[in-house]
Amino acid sequence: MRALLWVCALISSSFALWPQPKHFEHGSSTLWLSANVQLVHSSHSASTQPLGWFWITVQQVIRPSHHGAPSTVGWLSLSSETLLQSAFERMKLKVLDGSFVPRKFYPRGAHFEPATDNPKCYIERIVIDEDPRNNLTSTGRHDRSEAYTIDVSEDGAALIKIASPLGGLHALETFAQLFLTHSSPSAGSYTPYAPLLIHDSPVFEHRGLNLDISRNWISPADVMRTIEAMGANKLNRLHIHASDAQSWPLEIPALPELALKGAYSPAQIWSTEDLEAIQLHGTYHGVQVFTEIDLPGHTTSIGNAYPSLVTAKDMPWSEYALEPPSGQLRLNSSEVPPFIQALLDDLLSRTSRHSSLFHLGGDELNMNAYRLDPTVRSSSHHILQPLVQAFIDLVISIATAHSLTVIMWEEMVLDWNLTLPHQDVIIQTWRGSDDDALGTILGKGYKTLFGSNAHWYLDCGYGYFVDPDPLNPDSPVRPPYLDYCSPYKNWRHMYAYDPVAGVPQSQRHLVVGGEVHLWGELTDSINLDDMLWPRVAAAAEVMWSAPGKKPDESTTRRLADMRERLVMRGIRAGVVQMEWCLRHQGGCRL
Amino acid sequence: MRALLWVCALISSSFALWPQPKHFEHGSSTLWLSANVQLVHSSHSASTQPLGWFWITVQQVIRPSHHGAPSTVGWLSLSSETLLQSAFERMKLKVLDGSFVPRKFYPRGAHFEPATDNPKCYIERIVIDEDPRNNLTSTGRHDRSEAYTIDVSEDGAALIKIASPLGGLHALETFAQLFLTHSSPSAGSYTPYAPLLIHDSPVFEHRGLNLDISRNWISPADVMRTIEAMGANKLNRLHIHASDAQSWPLEIPALPELALKGAYSPAQIWSTEDLEAIQLHGTYHGVQVFTEIDLPGHTTSIGNAYPSLVTAKDMPWSEYALEPPSGQLRLNSSEVPPFIQALLDDLLSRTSRHSSLFHLGGDELNMNAYRLDPTVRSSSHHILQPLVQAFIDLVISIATAHSLTVIMWEEMVLDWNLTLPHQDVIIQTWRGSDDDALGTILGKGYKTLFGSNAHWYLDCGYGYFVDPDPLNPDSPVRPPYLDYCSPYKNWRHMYAYDPVAGVPQSQRHLVVGGEVHLWGELTDSINLDDMLWPRVAAAAEVMWSAPGKKPDESTTRRLADMRERLVMRGIRAGVVQMEWCLRHQGGCRL
Repeated sequence: MRALLWVCALISSSFALWPQPKHFEHGSSTLWLSANVQLVHSSHSASTQPLGWFWITVQQVIRPSHHGAPSTVGWLSLSSETLLQSAFERMKLKVLDGSFVPRKFYPRGAHFEPATDNPKCYIERIVIDEDPRNNLTSTGRHDRSEAYTIDVSEDGAALIKIASPLGGLHALETFAQLFLTHSSPSAGSYTPYAPLLIHDSPVFEHRGLNLDISRNWISPADVMRTIEAMGANKLNRLHIHASDAQSWPLEIPALPELALKGAYSPAQIWSTEDLEAIQLHGTYHGVQVFTEIDLPGHTTSIGNAYPSLVTAKDMPWSEYALEPPSGQLRLNSSEVPPFIQALLDDLLSRTSRHSSLFHLGGDELNMNAYRLDPTVRSSSHHILQPLVQAFIDLVISIATAHSLTVIMWEEMVLDWNLTLPHQDVIIQTWRGSDDDALGTILGKGYKTLFGSNAHWYLDCGYGYFVDPDPLNPDSPVRPPYLDYCSPYKNWRHMYAYDPVAGVPQSQRHLVVGGEVHLWGELTDSINLDDMLWPRVAAAAEVMWSAPGKKPDESTTRRLADMRERLVMRGIRAGVVQMEWCLRHQGGCRL
Repeated sequence: MRALLWVCALISSSFALWPQPKHFEHGSSTLWLSANVQLVHSSHSASTQPLGWFWITVQQVIRPSHHGAPSTVGWLSLSSETLLQSAFERMKLKVLDGSFVPRKFYPRGAHFEPATDNPKCYIERIVIDEDPRNNLTSTGRHDRSEAYTIDVSEDGAALIKIASPLGGLHALETFAQLFLTHSSPSAGSYTPYAPLLIHDSPVFEHRGLNLDISRNWISPADVMRTIEAMGANKLNRLHIHASDAQSWPLEIPALPELALKGAYSPAQIWSTEDLEAIQLHGTYHGVQVFTEIDLPGHTTSIGNAYPSLVTAKDMPWSEYALEPPSGQLRLNSSEVPPFIQALLDDLLSRTSRHSSLFHLGGDELNMNAYRLDPTVRSSSHHILQPLVQAFIDLVISIATAHSLTVIMWEEMVLDWNLTLPHQDVIIQTWRGSDDDALGTILGKGYKTLFGSNAHWYLDCGYGYFVDPDPLNPDSPVRPPYLDYCSPYKNWRHMYAYDPVAGVPQSQRHLVVGGEVHLWGELTDSINLDDMLWPRVAAAAEVMWSAPGKKPDESTTRRLADMRERLVMRGIRAGVVQMEWCLRHQGGCRL
């Protein structure tokens, strides 16, 4: 195998595999995928740790150790077999019904395809060996559930080793990316990389996308499509920013008025069935979907149904909020806790069947708004801080009763100095201007997520979303109308982000992972794909395998290849590089 | 009519009409469009000025006065009747089969629609009175071919007055935008603005989009769709940047090798039928489509078929070009003039049936490249200048023999100081850094087009398209990887561009109009719409009616309305404003 490595290097930079695996060695023989390829799944885990183990593994649970026994999750009818068979069928569709002939990666007229008149060597069977004791590449982490190896011999024997079905989902996506469609009709699909050996596992455990569905309408179908693209990029966490000041699109059966009065319109509500289907779709694609109910700020839309819970609703927004409309949950009202209890008991009893996480928000709390709160009448930090602490304590207690780990935005620690149960919470940083946010949070011993707005905010650079106030002669909304986090974060900039550059090794275990963010002011169903892709893919590789790397030409070529695959699968991703550059490797350097 | 004006002002800021007409007064009565609405077209021009006149009008010809007689265009089978009937049918489709219920422009639950149980008053007939002697609003220009009036009485009598069919196309698009779909099934479509009177005509004669189809593949279908969206925004010139260094996508039957060897692949060629169909589609939508063959720079792709015509082909690009790949037409070769003659005679004999314009390019000529040109062997301006003059003289002579006006980029005047025939040329400015480009060109008495890259380059802000050279320690391709014309030009910035702010009234007649530009490094079929819209619409209003205006909230609301209409017609336009702001007029000011 190793003797072939040099030969391969000549072609390996052009193609395939996003995110880059930890270890990939290959030859240059051709193998074809049989139209009748079979999956042979041998599981050594079912007998020892049946449903419960499987579920815990699939969900990548980050749970308090007092989490209940596997029997509590008896609802789950998905078996490892089902999950892998489904992923295998998708892989077959991608490879055998795909049409990715990589013409645009070669000079005009180049012959880059294998001959079809020779006898073809086929892969007839893919053996998946699932065993928690499998000797997979060390990830440097305790958890090996996402690790996998792929071993394909020159004569077409294909073996995948995994410790859990999650590793199998990743392996089958990687496997699909090894194949190209031949341009001769009916010739089929081939890999030019045999024999090959891949060892792979992620650098970070939590590799997420935060998607705002409140500011503009994003349909469940959009999210389904996005989950598929996330799975293809080995992202494993979809953070649904499900409520905000602008609208409440989520049906809560215990509090039906919330969506009926809080959604933009009756047609713009995610039903409980929608959420259930999305979470299940996530599980099938290796993406744990979890919801954020942004509390106690960003809650104006609650006031449509429950005006007595909200203070400063629809006041002049620039005094009482960072963006329109103003309105926050009252902080000392006796009505708020039972509302929160009812809301979260309803929602979390449903989401906790699919996810181990709940995000309570906690960002951008406006202190002015509490001067108008009849239960507080103060904007003093001294008075507000214990009220915020009590509120967050309540939310955490409800979430942990549902066996969930709570994520919250950095302000709760950095601005409000809350005392939080270290085992039950993860603090999510976002403010790019505060470079030391991660350091401060880690210094306090909290687990954390990265995703600076200076690097990973996809909505930046499109200009103001508010209009100039004709009564304000000093309106900042004037030429050139740049938004607060301009410029646009191009994919190379996102790729070059090294989120843990300043984190000492001793604290590295507390960095659970990160998220890229799409806030919804200027995004809806129509332009969603273009806002996300290919940039989210760049972030995905950072979190899977490449933190701290600068993008080079081979990065561009692999990402451009991945973009073509996403387009082929119905994702309207933007262009990575001009076709001439793709066709003339080395021709577009500066 | 005027007594109703105040009432209307309450609702008029929410809706309709992009670009804004010169004069629009209306009431607040409801009229419905009959499903059987008929067009009654009375033309007073056919008898006096038949086909020839019509053609000249439709084409908005900017021609030398020695242009041949109408009989030379006897090929054209389109009558004014055909054109207007076709536009009328499209209007009916948009209004009657549309589904634009403007819910997202009103607060949740608001009642904004007319009752459907009252007797409905219908528009049963639209009378179009076409007469060159019609007394239309003065445009401040001699040419009134695009002007129109719409007069709709409270009882549904609809009269459109035009001087040429072009005005009719604009009038019917405006007419369609006056209508909304009622949410009750089968209730139909209505305008809430009766009675109404519109006088309209453009500020600039040439209102264009420059679309690069060479750097990445843009299919004829993409261009067809783009033409429809342009017509809806009253843009009337599509400048096809049809060739560049990277590829030659245009079939030239006299020189078949050009596309066979110059296109990215055989599947990426516009056939002569494609170009013909696109130009005809343009005529149907009021958009004159004209081609640019970028000469004598940006011609590397010619060298694939004709290597002896090109110098410095595929040399280290940063020394011989502004972007990869390098290569320019030789300047003193005896082979070049017959090639140019054959190329242009073929192309222009076809394009001149639909257009009065030809763009010869003329930008970014690299002087270094001529050190390698065996017919020149010099990079001295002194030596090159007369050669450039002779080359451009040749191209102009061929184009004028085809009765075409020649457009060229500003460098030919500003950098090369060419002497050009004032009547036959238009100089197109583009370099934002050279604020005085327009002034200098006007000072020399040339007609000109505006479209500064500091304001109207749609491709800016997406980051570098080249990769860092690993051998160049000083590569500028490093974080944050911003491109040369970053930041992204947001729609408000584009709208606020006042292209003629510094032009004295005495020279204003030389400013023919402008163009917004989409260079293709990071655009292909997949993300084309998102790159163009809604930003091109913002530029369209600047050129039709609003040069020098700053965008305010009513601009946002009208553009958001237009965006919904474009989406409904299959254009994947980006978001103008968050839905909450649209639903809460006045709520998103700063």
